[in-house]
Amino acid sequence: MKHIIEAQQFDIDWLEGKFFPLADEMGKLVDCDKPTDILRGKRMAVFFYEPSTRTRASFESAMRFLGGEVVFSTENARQFSSVVKGESLRDTILVLNRYRPHVIILRYHEEGGARIAEEVSSEIGANAASIINAGDGTGQHPTQALLDVYTIHKRLGRIAEISVAMVGDLKNGRTVRSLTYLLAKYPGVKFYFVAPPASMIKEDIKTHLRKHGVTFFEETDLREVARMVDVIYQTRTQRERGSDLDRSDSSQGFFMVDESVLELMKPESVIMHPLPRNEEITLEVDKDPRAAYLTDQIDAGLFTRMALLKMLLT
Amino acid sequence: MKHIIEAQQFDIDWLEGKFFPLADEMGKLVDCDKPTDILRGKRMAVFFYEPSTRTRASFESAMRFLGGEVVFSTENARQFSSVVKGESLRDTILVLNRYRPHVIILRYHEEGGARIAEEVSSEIGANAASIINAGDGTGQHPTQALLDVYTIHKRLGRIAEISVAMVGDLKNGRTVRSLTYLLAKYPGVKFYFVAPPASMIKEDIKTHLRKHGVTFFEETDLREVARMVDVIYQTRTQRERGSDLDRSDSSQGFFMVDESVLELMKPESVIMHPLPRNEEITLEVDKDPRAAYLTDQIDAGLFTRMALLKMLLT
Amino acid sequence: MKHIIEAQQFDIDWLEGKFFPLADEMGKLVDCDKPTDILRGKRMAVFFYEPSTRTRASFESAMRFLGGEVVFSTENARQFSSVVKGESLRDTILVLNRYRPHVIILRYHEEGGARIAEEVSSEIGANAASIINAGDGTGQHPTQALLDVYTIHKRLGRIAEISVAMVGDLKNGRTVRSLTYLLAKYPGVKFYFVAPPASMIKEDIKTHLRKHGVTFFEETDLREVARMVDVIYQTRTQRERGSDLDRSDSSQGFFMVDESVLELMKPESVIMHPLPRNEEITLEVDKDPRAAYLTDQIDAGLFTRMALLKMLLT
Repeated sequence: MKHIIEAQQFDIDWLEGKFFPLADEMGKLVDCDKPTDILRGKRMAVFFYEPSTRTRASFESAMRFLGGEVVFSTENARQFSSVVKGESLRDTILVLNRYRPHVIILRYHEEGGARIAEEVSSEIGANAASIINAGDGTGQHPTQALLDVYTIHKRLGRIAEISVAMVGDLKNGRTVRSLTYLLAKYPGVKFYFVAPPASMIKEDIKTHLRKHGVTFFEETDLREVARMVDVIYQTRTQRERGSDLDRSDSSQGFFMVDESVLELMKPESVIMHPLPRNEEITLEVDKDPRAAYLTDQIDAGLFTRMALLKMLLT
Repeated sequence: MKHIIEAQQFDIDWLEGKFFPLADEMGKLVDCDKPTDILRGKRMAVFFYEPSTRTRASFESAMRFLGGEVVFSTENARQFSSVVKGESLRDTILVLNRYRPHVIILRYHEEGGARIAEEVSSEIGANAASIINAGDGTGQHPTQALLDVYTIHKRLGRIAEISVAMVGDLKNGRTVRSLTYLLAKYPGVKFYFVAPPASMIKEDIKTHLRKHGVTFFEETDLREVARMVDVIYQTRTQRERGSDLDRSDSSQGFFMVDESVLELMKPESVIMHPLPRNEEITLEVDKDPRAAYLTDQIDAGLFTRMALLKMLLT
Repeated sequence: MKHIIEAQQFDIDWLEGKFFPLADEMGKLVDCDKPTDILRGKRMAVFFYEPSTRTRASFESAMRFLGGEVVFSTENARQFSSVVKGESLRDTILVLNRYRPHVIILRYHEEGGARIAEEVSSEIGANAASIINAGDGTGQHPTQALLDVYTIHKRLGRIAEISVAMVGDLKNGRTVRSLTYLLAKYPGVKFYFVAPPASMIKEDIKTHLRKHGVTFFEETDLREVARMVDVIYQTRTQRERGSDLDRSDSSQGFFMVDESVLELMKPESVIMHPLPRNEEITLEVDKDPRAAYLTDQIDAGLFTRMALLKMLLT
């Protein structure tokens, strides 16, 4: 494996046999807080065309925990770097490679950016840096999907046969797309897409699920679904991508996680959110032991990114 | 001591017995330019919601001088990071902690930010990162106050019994607030607040001084005061916080430091400024040996921040 | 040599006898990918008043390859740092020096910035940081000129007696200015300035060339010139500096590098561009072996900046 481009590239054997155990190992390493030099002399370039403090901090922290170096990092390549002068992504990736990073963490504002970067790398050949897609517009965010499945694995001890509610603005969120692709590889996973009709998950995902014989339901009230699922995956309304959603409009449906939802949920279930969170999960939910979004899910981001870096760079 | 939140938390015994000697030690370390690894394996996250190049550079340099790592740094969290998506400071501090920094340097655009961060840390418990308040809106800037008292201590050899002129836009400047709280703990310190009525220091500070029996005067002409004081603490007009001040408007008063003021000042006195400086100190003052704002006061920022980091992290 | 301010400060003896061999050595070091600690304990501050991802990444990577530290880096000093509060460059350089960097990489938005920084450093004396001018408005960009001559040296094996076409918006580009000053020091170098009259190179450069007896021609069709030159140095239209240029307007002239130009060029010649590139070099040119702008020229930036840092800091 040279690049991390999309969630579809991983399979269950790899996840269960290699990735989860390595992420567990990384977690132990972080918990001991011992400096390691596994990635000593390895160089990371972080090139974000749109800001994402959390993802950037997670990758940079992961690299440092393994003793590697972040040799260059920019968060607003799109607005503030030389790309304002009209440079193509193609040229940028070619140039970046010449500074000899071992891995480039790329966040791009349009779908397909990571794929272009991968193609350029293939042209360069064996010496090219690994590309990790840290989100490309409405496309994919595969490391988010990996940390999400790892969180479920850790919390529930299994992924096969679980029921998952995906909630909120499902049309615009790339997180849900990547995660659905990945979970659908496990046998018996059932999906409840809970969103108003205007924000429902796109047809391509539904076609994919139908083709692979995966059961899914489209719903408009989280309270109807909460008692049946093992995972509630709540999402933020993607205002900056041009959508909005009233989460408790009785005519549209109910899409909040609040105390009424907590009461309905199974004791052994987990509440997740890719963050940042607005009002779609109320503050009293934070202290519930089923809430993972401010604790294990963030840890999972650190541990799984460390695992990926170790795999790609050693 | 776990967090640095406000100037009031320090007392004279700590300043004189622990802090100043440690800052002296740090100064020697910098002057030798020998790499140290006192903070080897310690991680700093720098999270600024508004820019401050000087403060950021000072903290990051301090960490590096001690052999620690700056694992993450952002200067415009407010405009460019995921906080544009509506994330609360509470969530941000919880998430940042999960990346296991040992210390978070926080600059926030509203009063009370550091206090919120401290509360979140207390909830997390023993493993939480130390919080250092690097300025919160019109609230406090305690490390500025510490470097200021250290500068006075170094230059004058004493703090008790000195007379201090605080000059300029005293209503909006948090620096003056923090410094006044700190200096007022020393016996016999006398304050001259030199500002036009509309920019005079706020009532809460005056009440605090009266309550503790501290002598202070309100003045409108620095030239009347210059001959009597050991310290002139000049400040910048806080244009971005909505104030302005004509410093030589004869009807309003006189608030510049220029050659006429130099001639009036005692030979053993010190001129300070938190920087950046506009025209409120004229350029010919820079070369006067009493000027500390471009030399010892900047050094003091580096040395005292090193001292704080060493205390908090070892 | 303490500072790098303008291209004129270098002479042929230094270039050929010291600089090129050291840059060769640096190239070998990068190609082996062995961590070195030549600059261990040396500190770089990167202070850019306008963004330039490529230049910044190149300097920071160079420092890291040599084992030095980047202790502070900002790319938008002008808009986002404390300079928005009105601080002068003079004060900034004085303050930066107090954080004890060994070298300051300065990019300034107005001509003369680097010169001011150098003057401030001279006042400070022996302990001042080295200043490297990474571009000052329409002034100079000497490290770009150095990497450009090094690229020509590597590709053609010589610089004396070559013919060079400088193409595009020659009035506003500082790159062409710096490079012309440097190349004009070599005997027998001939210049073809290929630009529409409104974008022709400025009078001061032409006066300089005349004074030193250097042959130059002013042209408006690259195809007329292509067969005669050893170097085509194409440039980008400096839209952000208020210029525009139609590169294939038959009334104005022809200023593109495309396949028709490739067919005319000598087999032993080189095509360069300071990047970023827009449409002034078409994509099919990239694969031509004479194209250096995405390969050797970028490498040259890394190797020559390493050489400079080693010279200044050891």
